[in-house]
Amino acid sequence: MVDWFGISRVVGEPGVLPQRAQKLDASLPLREGELLIDVERLNIDAASFKQLKAQCGGDAKALAGAVEAIVAERGKMQNLVTHSGGMLVGKIREVNAKHPQFSTLQVGQRIATLVSLTLTPLAIRRINAVKLDIDRVDIEGHAILFPSGIFALLPDDLPETLSLAALDVAGAPALVARYVKPGMTVLMLGAGKSGALCLAQARAAMAGQGELIAADISQSALDSLKQLELCDRSLVIDATAAVATMEKVAALTNGRMADLVINCASVANTEMASVLSCRDGGQVIFFSMATSFTAAALGAEGVGKDVTMVVGNGFVPGHAELTFKLLKENPRLKAFFAERYC
Amino acid sequence: MVDWFGISRVVGEPGVLPQRAQKLDASLPLREGELLIDVERLNIDAASFKQLKAQCGGDAKALAGAVEAIVAERGKMQNLVTHSGGMLVGKIREVNAKHPQFSTLQVGQRIATLVSLTLTPLAIRRINAVKLDIDRVDIEGHAILFPSGIFALLPDDLPETLSLAALDVAGAPALVARYVKPGMTVLMLGAGKSGALCLAQARAAMAGQGELIAADISQSALDSLKQLELCDRSLVIDATAAVATMEKVAALTNGRMADLVINCASVANTEMASVLSCRDGGQVIFFSMATSFTAAALGAEGVGKDVTMVVGNGFVPGHAELTFKLLKENPRLKAFFAERYC
Repeated sequence: MVDWFGISRVVGEPGVLPQRAQKLDASLPLREGELLIDVERLNIDAASFKQLKAQCGGDAKALAGAVEAIVAERGKMQNLVTHSGGMLVGKIREVNAKHPQFSTLQVGQRIATLVSLTLTPLAIRRINAVKLDIDRVDIEGHAILFPSGIFALLPDDLPETLSLAALDVAGAPALVARYVKPGMTVLMLGAGKSGALCLAQARAAMAGQGELIAADISQSALDSLKQLELCDRSLVIDATAAVATMEKVAALTNGRMADLVINCASVANTEMASVLSCRDGGQVIFFSMATSFTAAALGAEGVGKDVTMVVGNGFVPGHAELTFKLLKENPRLKAFFAERYC
Repeated sequence: MVDWFGISRVVGEPGVLPQRAQKLDASLPLREGELLIDVERLNIDAASFKQLKAQCGGDAKALAGAVEAIVAERGKMQNLVTHSGGMLVGKIREVNAKHPQFSTLQVGQRIATLVSLTLTPLAIRRINAVKLDIDRVDIEGHAILFPSGIFALLPDDLPETLSLAALDVAGAPALVARYVKPGMTVLMLGAGKSGALCLAQARAAMAGQGELIAADISQSALDSLKQLELCDRSLVIDATAAVATMEKVAALTNGRMADLVINCASVANTEMASVLSCRDGGQVIFFSMATSFTAAALGAEGVGKDVTMVVGNGFVPGHAELTFKLLKENPRLKAFFAERYC
């Protein structure tokens, strides 16, 4: 039977998922349904890299040794302090015949993994370079993706750094595509990377009907989005101030409020601003990782607000392709992204 | 202008919502849109009452004094340590003409508030009794509901303790009513109070087509639900063991998994069992207050699962009436509720 989630790769903890496991078995040969990758580089999670840098006093060689030691011990690159991982880039070396995409994948294709390094079996043969300024470790080695392990084929016609920056938040615009309909008033809280992509996708889904409002604490971030024509209106707000945010949205919409609120804020305590800015019967999608479940659930109840609140799932089928397409079809957005996030 | 959320009742903290405020102004007269209640009893939140009991060494008189002191100081019954509140029961004394339900409410009707005491202006004239065994304080005094403040009319034909026990979780079955369709396979995680009500509502919404699976760690809880014919199948599972739960659901559904998973579990770390037990393209509603937003969002991404995840909003219009109706139309459920939760 195909081991969809790689449970058989967990060492010594029966029934535990790879992400929570202490140690994974990265040995070959490949098992049923798996994908083998020749790894070129590890993009280490920012929190993890910062911790490693501090531990090694900023010394690249010591950091290389620390990464080698973790992977040798755990069979995966999961930081012992922050418990976070990152992702990797490499070339497909082998696809087992039972992998769900066996018929379309080709050996040699360059891919980026979209599942965390914390659940990816990994073996390092040698470390070629440590890039201290961009949280990157260039290696030779192999990694294994389980049949459920999502990844993206890296396009030839986009710079790799741009593709990787976009992949980081690809789930957001893909989910937005399902919720935005022509004629809606859409409020975006947060004018950062995922906010910009979501606005571009919302613009496409609205087909010229409806209104896109971008809200952020930074006037200059909003100005950038307006220059790119990614929003119709903009609002300088502090989304942790729920009532003030609501009042500004009410003034801008003549009291109708937003049909859909998309929360891409990077700070905590923005749940109530989202709920209060949404009309009764409307929808809120939370993408912010700072979202508190109880603050959202109890907050909406506390103000008697009938809104549908959705947890922003980072995975939507086809999300990588959708996001690459957005960038390719929006040369100005692409240039903005390249300048800002690469 | 009507002050929908009672911001004008907050003392000394402009723009802060009443729930987060240090002090509320419970003074009369009533303001635009407000509702005045002659309070009979406070049902103190369990965590709060436990703390007060410990602080007062289990002495009822001391506890009465502590409650009086808090309400005198803060203008609301919000515990200084646990920060939690509770709800109240009383009679309508006055309805301002701008209250949204002015035309239908009558002075003298008995109601229970569905918003927390942490945001309800309250003044106590005297304390009549402290019921140490049921977390209740009987008082004379008044409370104010803002126009957004939700409440339920207490039905004459249900015992009050039963109504209050049901109101505690009324949001869950009302939201379930929106999501369950005939023909679905519905998995309920958690066979407690909200689980039983949700199953009864799902049964009604399925109109005889589809399958209801109840899952819980307790065989006896499941046996009770089966006796009440609230589920078609039952599964003894530990929902913190995601993979084992998934495998049992797969075996029971011949690999089809659930179309809708309703999480009413009372323990943490059940997000992944919910996600993995749901089919691709299915839906998960999280009602458990132990739900972690990031565990749900990142967990679904980590296993590449395309499920719609909904935050269980405790407020759905008409939820109290819907829940009372469920109990009245299900005499056996009502008897079970009375025995178990009153």
